[in-house]
Amino acid sequence: VITLDEVLRLRDKSARERQQRLFVEGVRFLITAVDSGAQLDALVVVPSRLVSPVAQMIVRRLKRQGVPILSLTPDEFARLSLLGEPQGVGAVIKQRWASLTQVAQPKRDALWLSLDEVRSPGNLGTLLRTCDAVGARGLLCSPHVDPYDPSTVRATMGSLFSQRLVRASARELTPFKKHYAFVGAAPDAPHDYRAPRYDRPVVLVLGSERHGLSPDQRSLCDTLVRIPMVGRCDSLNLAIAASVLLYEIHNQRHPH
Amino acid sequence: VITLDEVLRLRDKSARERQQRLFVEGVRFLITAVDSGAQLDALVVVPSRLVSPVAQMIVRRLKRQGVPILSLTPDEFARLSLLGEPQGVGAVIKQRWASLTQVAQPKRDALWLSLDEVRSPGNLGTLLRTCDAVGARGLLCSPHVDPYDPSTVRATMGSLFSQRLVRASARELTPFKKHYAFVGAAPDAPHDYRAPRYDRPVVLVLGSERHGLSPDQRSLCDTLVRIPMVGRCDSLNLAIAASVLLYEIHNQRHPH
Repeated sequence: VITLDEVLRLRDKSARERQQRLFVEGVRFLITAVDSGAQLDALVVVPSRLVSPVAQMIVRRLKRQGVPILSLTPDEFARLSLLGEPQGVGAVIKQRWASLTQVAQPKRDALWLSLDEVRSPGNLGTLLRTCDAVGARGLLCSPHVDPYDPSTVRATMGSLFSQRLVRASARELTPFKKHYAFVGAAPDAPHDYRAPRYDRPVVLVLGSERHGLSPDQRSLCDTLVRIPMVGRCDSLNLAIAASVLLYEIHNQRHPH
Repeated sequence: VITLDEVLRLRDKSARERQQRLFVEGVRFLITAVDSGAQLDALVVVPSRLVSPVAQMIVRRLKRQGVPILSLTPDEFARLSLLGEPQGVGAVIKQRWASLTQVAQPKRDALWLSLDEVRSPGNLGTLLRTCDAVGARGLLCSPHVDPYDPSTVRATMGSLFSQRLVRASARELTPFKKHYAFVGAAPDAPHDYRAPRYDRPVVLVLGSERHGLSPDQRSLCDTLVRIPMVGRCDSLNLAIAASVLLYEIHNQRHPH
């Protein structure tokens, strides 16, 4: 059975990657993980705090199925938790990565996000939540991007499990140019983001908060678009910019 | 002259409100504060860290104008700073609140944001950054909302100073219904957010992350709109939802 120290270690990126696991906490995450078919390596429970009847039911069922359970005191669980009021339930689950072949032969309304670098884990999580809301397929990301960072996972509010995650940096996506329109966002782009028709499968390519699109990303893109800004404002938050673009693509495909 | 302890105290909301001041840090914030005509009560400087020629120039000029300067060691400044790599310059400035009379007699394209409660200070800052980008006038907020929280200020990236800040909860805005369309966002709203024509002055009314619009806010609104979401996703991040709405309003008024 897993120990508290082993779960604590999953806060480190290197341990998460070596073990290909992550820790999620809270009733909502437990439900979403189970419903998405995630592989549960262990349940982490504070028996005295487990008041949600749904969570109790899930824990009982998983226990019957042989999932190991780590029982903790409230103080021990607090060491694991990012929350002010921990709900006393969590799980160690397997990371799930899809293969790049999933990107080939897209449906007409396919939409992916491509990131080579992102500074704020919270931003990435917020962004994955919007990806879910517009029915995007998932995230194509370089090894510098960690969608399983605890702050990212938390900010997705569970939407993480709706998205396919694929390891692929901009450079590796070139073979897919025949299948997709690659659309990049840049403040100096020639086109207003409302101008293109997003009627082919799209990969939306976003640069980092600090440096924008990398040279590799720029050369991948068929179209560069900008979001208009007035006044002295020269940039938007990355998750905001991406979400405005994702909704424009979604809206064009789903007139109201 | 102000002391380090007095500046540290400005991290508390009650001290900020009593003194009607705040501490801002970094070259960008110093420049934006000076350019927006903010009243500077003191400069806070680490002489050995002040490498930006523009910042040096500003500090010299303000010193000549008689602004008191608090010189700190790098370690002392680090206690004040939210940043990983402090730039060694900051300022104590006066809060600036506009009066509710500023809201009357709006121009046709006026756009305000109204908030009675917001949980995440970072979200509020990100949102004010989008307000700046779409040329909104500012924020109408209840006393529960603190636009001068350090995490909020930081997330605005300086856009805070472009926005008028007015203390006014939803209840106090009723007299302005003749001047504005009050548009509220709710997941159960009857209209898609793209359906209304935003051709009158608009106040966009947003509820809290947890509870959505309050009863007071709902009764203030002329129109309730929802942002479409697909799949199992049932909500967006507050700053994301607000920004998608702000851009729709802005886009309708500024066709590309």
